[in-house]
Formats: sequence, C-alpha cells, structure tokens
Amino acid sequence: MEKLEQLYEGKAKKIYRTTDEQVVWISYKDSATAFNGEKKAEIQGKGRLNNEISTILFELLKEKGISSHFVKRISETEQLVKKVKILPIEVVIRNIAAGTLAKRLGIPEGQILPRTILEYYYKNDDLGDPLINEDHIDILELATKEQLQQISEQAFKINELLTSYFADKQVKLVDFKLEFGVDENGQLLLADEISPDTCRLWDAETNEKLDKDVFRRELGSLTDAYEKILKRLGGLSCTK
Amino acid sequence: MEKLEQLYEGKAKKIYRTTDEQVVWISYKDSATAFNGEKKAEIQGKGRLNNEISTILFELLKEKGISSHFVKRISETEQLVKKVKILPIEVVIRNIAAGTLAKRLGIPEGQILPRTILEYYYKNDDLGDPLINEDHIDILELATKEQLQQISEQAFKINELLTSYFADKQVKLVDFKLEFGVDENGQLLLADEISPDTCRLWDAETNEKLDKDVFRRELGSLTDAYEKILKRLGGLSCTK
Ligand SMILES: Nc1ncnc2c1ncn2[C@@H]1O[C@H](COP(=O)(O)OP(=O)(O)O)[C@@H](O)[C@H]1O
Ligand SMILES: Nc1ncnc2c1ncn2[C@@H]1O[C@H](COP(=O)(O)OP(=O)(O)O)[C@@H](O)[C@H]1O
Ligand SMILES: [Mg+2]
Ligand SMILES: [Mg+2]
Repeated sequence: MEKLEQLYEGKAKKIYRTTDEQVVWISYKDSATAFNGEKKAEIQGKGRLNNEISTILFELLKEKGISSHFVKRISETEQLVKKVKILPIEVVIRNIAAGTLAKRLGIPEGQILPRTILEYYYKNDDLGDPLINEDHIDILELATKEQLQQISEQAFKINELLTSYFADKQVKLVDFKLEFGVDENGQLLLADEISPDTCRLWDAETNEKLDKDVFRRELGSLTDAYEKILKRLGGLSCTK
Repeated sequence: MEKLEQLYEGKAKKIYRTTDEQVVWISYKDSATAFNGEKKAEIQGKGRLNNEISTILFELLKEKGISSHFVKRISETEQLVKKVKILPIEVVIRNIAAGTLAKRLGIPEGQILPRTILEYYYKNDDLGDPLINEDHIDILELATKEQLQQISEQAFKINELLTSYFADKQVKLVDFKLEFGVDENGQLLLADEISPDTCRLWDAETNEKLDKDVFRRELGSLTDAYEKILKRLGGLSCTK
C-alpha cells in the first residue's frame, strides 16, 4: 500500500489517497484546536497519542461486534482506514452534564443525567456546528431516516461498551462525539476517531479532566493528560 | 365573572385570577419586546390588535376542531381563557426559512422548505430559549412522550388550517410559535396567543413583512402592519 496525494486536511488529521481506492491513509497531526478553530496550538506528541488511543478503542469495538472504518495502525501517527463519505453530522452521546449541554440547559457540570442522551450537530464549521433536530437533518438531506435509526442504535451501543471499558480503567466517560460515513457499497460505518479530543474523560475518583478540556480551559499539560489515558488503556507504546 | 389579583406578568400579557378557579383573565399589553427582552418598546394599540387577531384565530381553529384555552374576548384588550399549567416548551412550525432557522442552517431567508418542520425550544428566558431535542425534553421532564406526540400532531394540523386560511387572505404563513398547557383535568390544550407577535406573516405578492419582524428589524410602523393583518382577517373592530 502506498500513500498518494493528500485528499484533505482537517483540524486534527490529514487524509491521503492510497493505491487502494477503498482505503485512505490518515495522519494524526500535532495540532489542537477549540471553539470552532478560534483557539489553536501545536502540541508535540498529541498526534501519536490520539492515533494510539483511537486504535485501541476501534480494536476494542471491533472485538465487541462494532465494525468501523479502522483497518490498521501503520506508524506512531498513522492509520489506514476504509474510505467513506462522511455524513456531515456530529453524533454526541452524553452521560454526565458538561460543556455546551450544561450551558444550554442550565444543568451543573458533573451532574449525572437521568438517562443517556443523544444529540445531532450539523458538521459545518462556517455555521459553528449548530445543534440540529431530525427535521433539520431531513430537509438538509444529511442522512436518511434509516441511517439515523442505525446511527442512534450504534451510538448507544458504543456508549455501553466504552462506558464499561473506561469504568474498568477508573475513567468516567462523560460524553463523546462520533462521525459516521458510507462506504463504496453503501454500508454505514463508524469513522473518524475516538480519542481524548472527541471524548470527555474524567478520573473516576478525583474527576480530574483527562481530555481536550485541559486545552480548552488551560488546566495543564494536554499530553500529560492523554498519556495518563493511554497508560490506563494498557498503552501501545507508552515510551517515546 | 370577576377579575381578581394578578397571577403573573409576561412580556406581552398580564394574567389574573378570576372568581372561577378554572378561568384566567388575560390582558394584552401595549409593549413589544425582541431578542429575549433586549429590545423593548411601548406601542400603543398593539394589545388590542393582538387580542383581536388571536381571538379570530382561536375561533377559526375551534370551528375546525382544534380546542384551545380560549373562552371569549371580553374587551378590546382582554380575553377569558381556561387556566392551564403551561409546558415550558415553545413549539415552532416552519414552512419557509427565516430568522434563526435561516441563520442556523445557512438557508437563505424566504426559501420554501422541502417540507414543513417542527422545532422545540426550551421556554426559559435565563437560558435564552435554546433549541432542544426530545432527549433534552425527556431528561428535563418538560413533557411526556405522549404529550409530545399529541403536540406535534396538533401543531402540524394547526399549520395546515392556518396556512390555507391565511393563503385565502393573500398572506404567507412563514413560521409560528405555539404553547401548550395542561388543564385541571390533565387535558392538553393549545394556549397562549396566535398573533403577528408569534407568527411570521408575509404579504403573498410582495413578501412585505406583516409581523413582529417589523419591530425587530425596524421596518416601519408595527401597528400599521398588524392593522393590515386584522383587516385581511375581516377584523373585529378595525376602527379605534
Ligand atoms: N474513513 C474516512 N474517510 C474519509 N474521510 C474521513 C474518514 N474518517 C474521517 N474522515 C474525515 O477526515 C477529515 C479530517 O479529520 P479532522 O482533522 O478531524 O477534521 P475536522 O477539522 O473536520 O474535525 C474530517 O472531515 C473527517 O470527517
Ligand atoms: N391559559 C393560560 N393559563 C395560564 N398561563 C397562560 C395561559 N396562556 C398563556 N399563559 C402564560 O402567560 C404568560 C404571559 O404571557 P406572555 O406575556 O406572552 O409571556 P412571555 O413573556 O413568557 O412571552 C406566559 O408565561 C404564558 O405562557
Ligand atoms: Mg475532527
Ligand atoms: Mg409570550
């Protein structure tokens, strides 16, 4: 498999074509962004950490019967994944109030929700990734009713698997964002990444934040936090 | 029936207890507010216009089989209505893109939507009436699943009735907001008001705005616009 030209560059990853039409090459970048790109920084080591954590989580999910775009990790910062057409929807699952939910509904951050909830956001940087409902998704034709049904079922299932997995590692899965895409054969697949960039992860005992909020709220070293997560997950290569 | 003490005062109406426990006395105020109360003005005649327009629309809906809190109009600016416990949800129906929908989704104002859509907002001035989804409604216990089902059915039905009624008067019903409440017997009832304060109404030919956007965007005389609507609806007392 060879890496060909870059297809696009996002805030956290670059995507390249490969000699296999159905596979793309993802390179995790060392940059952190927040607040729709308003806050930015280069953070050495972040690409490797997210690549490794994402690999562990996609492999875990695969074992548990959740297929995804993940094919394999090919270097410290790179993965091969199945090429999909990403649905422009960010699917957010929340177990505990935090971030925009706490603000939107006036619920104190940290309050355990009476039940897990799901939200859809329109993945559109120009519009600031607004919250949307199923009628908005319908008129914008972002996904079909059947796709939404599958997405929400998978998202809740993934939440159960990840919540219990993280709980074993003394980590609370507060909330997380998923992206889904459609492959060449029209199959819906979990895609993008699952990492401390896309999950809120709190230490089970102290509630110490071990995710991108460390960067958003300037709470300390982001890579120290991500290293802690990687270590708890058993690590792929905890040493540099 | 006698008017007793004031129960509460909102941005557009005052509500009084009456000698009948199941009935409240509504007085439409001459004040206009927008942007969550940031913009305010006293507008003489507005209370009368909204009271009359709302009366005509509730009576029309009743004829068509949609029951509401409306009992009767008792003066230029006053109504008797059944007392309900208002569900803190603003139900918005949209036929044409405008206002926050146009901004949220990046759709040009005036574009006819491929189908009518429904949105729920949390009626909470402190939080700025945010858009919410059914999971938010569930965890906040703002309404039951059964109530939401009834509300959405009624809202779409009301839209059909009002759209065709306004079309006959050469007016486009762009979007509107409804509130629902629960009466003493647990019955769900359409409540609050239906007026140019709560509907976007455009002249069918010219798209001239004949609703509160005239105030929000300073497009001219608000009462002239509301008078035009009242006149097209046949009026109750178009002269002062
Ligand atoms: N399997 C895949 N095939 C194609 N594109 C993908 C795949 N997985 C993720 N992407 C997309 O790659 C882009 C780059 O990722 P990222 O840097 O996280 O972007 P963003 O700035 O949108 O968050 C995103 O648009 C993401 O949705
Ligand atoms: N039938 C009713 N019984 C009790 N309260 C009502 C009824 N109809 C409307 N209300 C409430 O009366 C209050 C005053 O109305 P309004 O001035 O429009 O308030 P707001 O500032 O919330 O828009 C609102 O909270 C509205 O929901
Ligand atoms: Mg991303
Ligand atoms: Mg009101």
